[in-house]
Amino acid sequence: MANKTITSPRGFRVAAVKAGIKASGNLDLGLIIADKPCNTAGVFTTNKICSATIDVCRSHVSNGKIQAVFVNAGNANAATGQQGLEDAQTICTQIASKLNIKSSDVMVNSTGIIGHFMPMDKVAAGIDKAFDVINNSETNGLEFSQAIMTTDLTQKLAFKQIKLDGKVVKVAGTAKGSGMIAPNMATMLGFVTTDADIKPAMLKKALREVASMTFNKVSVDNHQSTNDSLIVMASGMAGNNEIAAEDENYQIFKKALWQVCDDLARQIAADGEGATCAVTVRVNSAATAKDATKAVRAIVDSPLVRTAFNGADPNWGRIVSAVGYSGAKFDLSKLTCKIAGKVVYRNGQPVKFDPATLSAKMKHPAWLVEVDLGAGQASDFCYTCDLSKGYVTINADYHT
Amino acid sequence: MANKTITSPRGFRVAAVKAGIKASGNLDLGLIIADKPCNTAGVFTTNKICSATIDVCRSHVSNGKIQAVFVNAGNANAATGQQGLEDAQTICTQIASKLNIKSSDVMVNSTGIIGHFMPMDKVAAGIDKAFDVINNSETNGLEFSQAIMTTDLTQKLAFKQIKLDGKVVKVAGTAKGSGMIAPNMATMLGFVTTDADIKPAMLKKALREVASMTFNKVSVDNHQSTNDSLIVMASGMAGNNEIAAEDENYQIFKKALWQVCDDLARQIAADGEGATCAVTVRVNSAATAKDATKAVRAIVDSPLVRTAFNGADPNWGRIVSAVGYSGAKFDLSKLTCKIAGKVVYRNGQPVKFDPATLSAKMKHPAWLVEVDLGAGQASDFCYTCDLSKGYVTINADYHT
Repeated sequence: MANKTITSPRGFRVAAVKAGIKASGNLDLGLIIADKPCNTAGVFTTNKICSATIDVCRSHVSNGKIQAVFVNAGNANAATGQQGLEDAQTICTQIASKLNIKSSDVMVNSTGIIGHFMPMDKVAAGIDKAFDVINNSETNGLEFSQAIMTTDLTQKLAFKQIKLDGKVVKVAGTAKGSGMIAPNMATMLGFVTTDADIKPAMLKKALREVASMTFNKVSVDNHQSTNDSLIVMASGMAGNNEIAAEDENYQIFKKALWQVCDDLARQIAADGEGATCAVTVRVNSAATAKDATKAVRAIVDSPLVRTAFNGADPNWGRIVSAVGYSGAKFDLSKLTCKIAGKVVYRNGQPVKFDPATLSAKMKHPAWLVEVDLGAGQASDFCYTCDLSKGYVTINADYHT
Repeated sequence: MANKTITSPRGFRVAAVKAGIKASGNLDLGLIIADKPCNTAGVFTTNKICSATIDVCRSHVSNGKIQAVFVNAGNANAATGQQGLEDAQTICTQIASKLNIKSSDVMVNSTGIIGHFMPMDKVAAGIDKAFDVINNSETNGLEFSQAIMTTDLTQKLAFKQIKLDGKVVKVAGTAKGSGMIAPNMATMLGFVTTDADIKPAMLKKALREVASMTFNKVSVDNHQSTNDSLIVMASGMAGNNEIAAEDENYQIFKKALWQVCDDLARQIAADGEGATCAVTVRVNSAATAKDATKAVRAIVDSPLVRTAFNGADPNWGRIVSAVGYSGAKFDLSKLTCKIAGKVVYRNGQPVKFDPATLSAKMKHPAWLVEVDLGAGQASDFCYTCDLSKGYVTINADYHT
């Protein structure tokens, strides 16, 4: 089978090593090195308590060019003050000096526990080790996806191949994200490589549009992370004519980027901490887009709704009552709710259904909740999961 | 010991019976009958998907006079459309005809599952039974508190005695509330009786002020109920001079009402579904009251924060990062967080502490989280509890 990891697009080498940052001793440090500076775009958390790494990334990507990306799991380097900032800069400097590039051509990403200083000796040794093993093999691509995992149970990969100007163009992505997931920016770590030739401004535009429809539609626990970033690097080695405007090639590329990011976003929801099912919540016929979002968020942010998902309980009362306090406008005489394809509440009235049959459908790994507000034309959606005892175990027992 | 239930203030008779509405067969129907029409005030849920009972209560209390209050647990009569409204009215009519009063002098309250029609035969028989046993005994007062319980583990009672114009005035309350608790109106069922003589307008004013500082400061799961109501009935039989203005007597009465409601609100938080500890979250030195509320809500609405409470884990990173995305203004160089009396983060920097000692304190049944934003003079607080596996069990296994 062809390599579908982030080493598949031409122009990238990748490494993952065990640096000893994770207590488990698993892979916890990764590098992406491009053969030459890449057109790069990023979107980042809007949390005001953010990791020092986010400040560094924002600054370094501002000129649209990056050659190396560092990532570690096990320590978020967040709420670590001046020391945290210096540590993030030191990491960039170490990598830059090995490549003989500017430290501003390096991005640094961290995920893990908040409020602890980075174990810099381990990090430095890990970087050295990563340079020893870096290559463009599928194995390294897979190991990179493992190195960024924290409470994730599955590694997350997505891949799409398109043709632009007769040339094969690849888009490959990987992501981590399982807890501390709320839809208000990238909400996890995501890395996308592509060999498309595309101007930085167009890459940035495509990434922002795609992020708003994919990663920003995932909610596991409505707790916005301090460290979210989604980065796309374009090596330009596919040989297509450089995308410089919103032309047909731009649309084809953007669609491929959307497919990769949508795939990863769904994987993140399905692997939400403790999740036993992935649920897409869609609100239709809202008066405004803002109203649609309000209703979606009220539903997915309700622990009562999400524990009902966990119990495979078609408790539409919880869903409808969440809409009731969401602040979204609706017409009660048209308000309708569908669970896993079955109408359970229509035009403001309960509908008779067989709970056992519907409950069986809710035990499937993925299904849909649809609510019609009967107030207009706008809609929105969110990828979420159930709230289980597993979530509580993971987060009550994960100690600082 | 003196009677401290809602039958203690003069002028009220109370009953509780097993009407067969709760599947458990426990007490599930209660009545409060005053000797004569009482000055009465109520505050109700702001959820637009509300119980038919809320519409009826709002309408009936609008003239400030009520003589009888009905309550049942086991069925919320919410999202039940026109049928639900007619059922609520039928209940009022039945009680009114027995007392030879207008049905608009009766209030009706329901709590339990959403979206099922009321078992009206059982309700009618239950009301008859209640009239057979109604009296002003302490036993009936206690049983009323039990009849309103759903997933509550403890019955909730509060009592305060004051003197006005040399006369003994009693204020007694009971409440239910364990899940579907968010601070945006009364957020549960609460019933307060008093023999104070106070004009309806002043009673309404006092209740609104007190509710905003007590019941509206409780959050268990941030899911606003369809059925919340808090009702206070004043029989006037204490013999004090009627309170008609915001004078000293008004202040004394309001303080007693606040003490009763604050006591009940804390009991509700402590008995939140699955709760193992009651936590008061306080945010100080906010730029505005709105900012203080935003920061408090972000903290108490985070499942990550509340699972850390459950694990007795002093994971201040989750608390501080919730402040980071709350939208509240803060000065990072002054941002400080204290858990159970211990400073764990000061002026934007982690503080060394012994996690084992602090974790032991977090295993106490009640403690405090304090956050200083360093941005002004405003503050706010919320009574909440931890998020446990017990909460998931209760709400995943509670079937429709």
